[in-house]
Amino acid sequence: MPDRLTHLDAQGTARMVDVGAKPVTERRAVAEAVVRMLPETAGAVAAGDAPKGDVLGTARIAGIQAAKRTDELIPLCHPIGLDLLDLDAVVDAEAGTVTLTATAAVTARTGVEMEAMTAAAVAALTVYDMVKGLERGVSIEAVRLLEKSGGRSGIWRR
Amino acid sequence: MPDRLTHLDAQGTARMVDVGAKPVTERRAVAEAVVRMLPETAGAVAAGDAPKGDVLGTARIAGIQAAKRTDELIPLCHPIGLDLLDLDAVVDAEAGTVTLTATAAVTARTGVEMEAMTAAAVAALTVYDMVKGLERGVSIEAVRLLEKSGGRSGIWRR
Amino acid sequence: MPDRLTHLDAQGTARMVDVGAKPVTERRAVAEAVVRMLPETAGAVAAGDAPKGDVLGTARIAGIQAAKRTDELIPLCHPIGLDLLDLDAVVDAEAGTVTLTATAAVTARTGVEMEAMTAAAVAALTVYDMVKGLERGVSIEAVRLLEKSGGRSGIWRR
Amino acid sequence: MPDRLTHLDAQGTARMVDVGAKPVTERRAVAEAVVRMLPETAGAVAAGDAPKGDVLGTARIAGIQAAKRTDELIPLCHPIGLDLLDLDAVVDAEAGTVTLTATAAVTARTGVEMEAMTAAAVAALTVYDMVKGLERGVSIEAVRLLEKSGGRSGIWRR
Amino acid sequence: MPDRLTHLDAQGTARMVDVGAKPVTERRAVAEAVVRMLPETAGAVAAGDAPKGDVLGTARIAGIQAAKRTDELIPLCHPIGLDLLDLDAVVDAEAGTVTLTATAAVTARTGVEMEAMTAAAVAALTVYDMVKGLERGVSIEAVRLLEKSGGRSGIWRR
Amino acid sequence: MPDRLTHLDAQGTARMVDVGAKPVTERRAVAEAVVRMLPETAGAVAAGDAPKGDVLGTARIAGIQAAKRTDELIPLCHPIGLDLLDLDAVVDAEAGTVTLTATAAVTARTGVEMEAMTAAAVAALTVYDMVKGLERGVSIEAVRLLEKSGGRSGIWRR
Repeated sequence: MPDRLTHLDAQGTARMVDVGAKPVTERRAVAEAVVRMLPETAGAVAAGDAPKGDVLGTARIAGIQAAKRTDELIPLCHPIGLDLLDLDAVVDAEAGTVTLTATAAVTARTGVEMEAMTAAAVAALTVYDMVKGLERGVSIEAVRLLEKSGGRSGIWRR
Repeated sequence: MPDRLTHLDAQGTARMVDVGAKPVTERRAVAEAVVRMLPETAGAVAAGDAPKGDVLGTARIAGIQAAKRTDELIPLCHPIGLDLLDLDAVVDAEAGTVTLTATAAVTARTGVEMEAMTAAAVAALTVYDMVKGLERGVSIEAVRLLEKSGGRSGIWRR
Repeated sequence: MPDRLTHLDAQGTARMVDVGAKPVTERRAVAEAVVRMLPETAGAVAAGDAPKGDVLGTARIAGIQAAKRTDELIPLCHPIGLDLLDLDAVVDAEAGTVTLTATAAVTARTGVEMEAMTAAAVAALTVYDMVKGLERGVSIEAVRLLEKSGGRSGIWRR
Repeated sequence: MPDRLTHLDAQGTARMVDVGAKPVTERRAVAEAVVRMLPETAGAVAAGDAPKGDVLGTARIAGIQAAKRTDELIPLCHPIGLDLLDLDAVVDAEAGTVTLTATAAVTARTGVEMEAMTAAAVAALTVYDMVKGLERGVSIEAVRLLEKSGGRSGIWRR
Repeated sequence: MPDRLTHLDAQGTARMVDVGAKPVTERRAVAEAVVRMLPETAGAVAAGDAPKGDVLGTARIAGIQAAKRTDELIPLCHPIGLDLLDLDAVVDAEAGTVTLTATAAVTARTGVEMEAMTAAAVAALTVYDMVKGLERGVSIEAVRLLEKSGGRSGIWRR
Repeated sequence: MPDRLTHLDAQGTARMVDVGAKPVTERRAVAEAVVRMLPETAGAVAAGDAPKGDVLGTARIAGIQAAKRTDELIPLCHPIGLDLLDLDAVVDAEAGTVTLTATAAVTARTGVEMEAMTAAAVAALTVYDMVKGLERGVSIEAVRLLEKSGGRSGIWRR
């Protein structure tokens, strides 16, 4: 690992990393976000989801859309395409959780770690938005990378 | 509290809540996000921050910018103005945390809870992006509302 | 009706209309778009919609999101808020149509006619995108205003 | 043709198609939108267009700009570049129509059909916006693909 | 005039100014940008403008569109509506200049100075983009406020 | 140099240049913008910058973010990626200037001249926004290309 923040140059000012010399390779990343709520709230999401799938369906679309705008949200991210952005949403009504898992893939000079993280986070914010009328105090309790591959550093798994 | 999800109509399809009949009042919300990392990584943020303030400075700007685009990110949020978006960033190097606290205020028909949550979350993603080259496995461990006021339901504090 | 295009000034150059002197009133508009396809394709939308509601659900979210960005898409539209954007999606499998009906409302100096039209059009494009793999030659056969109220000119119905 | 909607996975949830394994080829698509109005309105567009070209000129720019944001508008579209977006606008004053024809081209893993459709549709909405002060009840009566080439399925013409 | 930068708080970190307590008033600002080029290039713009008005027409639309996104571009600007954004484009072929003058107006808690400046600057960048194929070394030689009114500080003129 | 504007077609209407047949090469461009103010204002920027770096830090982030959206701002620009966007900000307190220098690089079919120009211009607008509370009449006195390389026409330097 480098011994200083790669986004800071010698003088400490923020900068984009120059990826021009990096090879174009297939890159993939998986991230998850967990929204914690009361079991009855999670039950309402699961049941409300039964007829029309809208809480989870809306969160999935929001996450996919956010992934495509990662470079507009995260200042030092490069604009890159996306070959795939998959967003999986699972309710565990008993545990009181909704888990959003985002998989991003691209063939490019830089990775899609931030795209997966952003998709999971915005999908979780959307779930929060849609249940906040039912329960105060819901929280997003984790947004984290699960797996990353492609590029120089090989495969990483949490 | 209502007994069903306010964003779902009678048939269960997603919808925006009609705020046309709500009064225009001052509304305020405070949310925080915590990014957990190794103490040495947090120390690098604090030190890298010393000369030019760029990790925290970049995260603050990213959070402010994201708050202004909340309605583009969260599908059922209303487009509203913002009177204020304040973003506070604090490093606790010993504990290995960076805490981002967002305060949003507006004079409108609907609240700024999602604006504060979105600002805190995107600022946290930006911190993550800027330290991920130093440490794998950093995670955002909480995004949650701390306080909310204005509107029909008065003041709420976690 | 005025005898020249209100968006062109005396010299014929495009311009935004100055709405500063207009009163703030409640304004509402309803628009629809019809996507025509083979009955079997419409049947697949209806059936595919049964378990998870995703074609229509995705189109609804896309239309709502587009309405909020109308002023970014249509050059001479004013940036305004939205009190409500409702998007109704109905499949007539026998007739081979999916009809998207958008209702927009705002309390502002100018109307939401373009917001309703844009929402219906983008929802229709989304339906098209999701069925084009099943059938070539699907077309959007109408995007039109159904109703408009508020402002100086009272209520208009097609 | 596949026997189910390619945007729905086995469980029926909306997803982006993974294009990572597709070859990079030249792809092109042509779409048109027709705006129907009274002959006198179309005549005003043609005449208003004579000195400064602004109705059609504004619509062309709006369509080009919208094409570049197709992936932000249509949830399951991939972000891709564009080698070309050409927008042709023709008034037939006698028939009372303005026809917008968009040609999109790219060298990529996936096509530009939605870019051409989106450009034509948004250009048509812009024409509508600019004549709605002259005539109520103008409608966009068709948005459809005319031609598509590149990729696995060869050339298609309506 | 205040004796410190109003966008920096006591600790020197960037912040949005809280405008919640400011009165809603009519505010207006006028800004201009001048693009300097060879007389023959300016002549081409003027002539190219004759048949279809496209260089200046395109620049006008670009400026209007940019004004509506000022808060997305300038980090500490508030999101506000716009009652009017007028963009005037004048070629002085002899002097070798294209002058873009933007007038912005709004009824709000904060002013539209940055909207006018942003519109003029982006219109000038668009002119530059459209003539750079004819002449290298064209430059934007001024972007400045001409006039500002509304709010606490009354009318200001350069 | 061509003898007519490359963005206008035979009929004089605005169009994107078709870059499909151009080779993918490394392209780089450097542009600068100069903001002129009183020496005491520039001194405040430099000093205000000392503890937290916020005026210049905010301007840098704004410029980087704007570069990524160049194709959304400048109508006839192609959407392209960016390998690098570097933004250097220097205060000359004695001379009363803040100079923003943007370097853009990409490996693509078309260049990044407009990305560098847009980054410098928006960074300058951000500096203006942050000092306008201290001094009226600050102006951006130049936005110009310094250097360009890659593509058919080789290296150009002002």
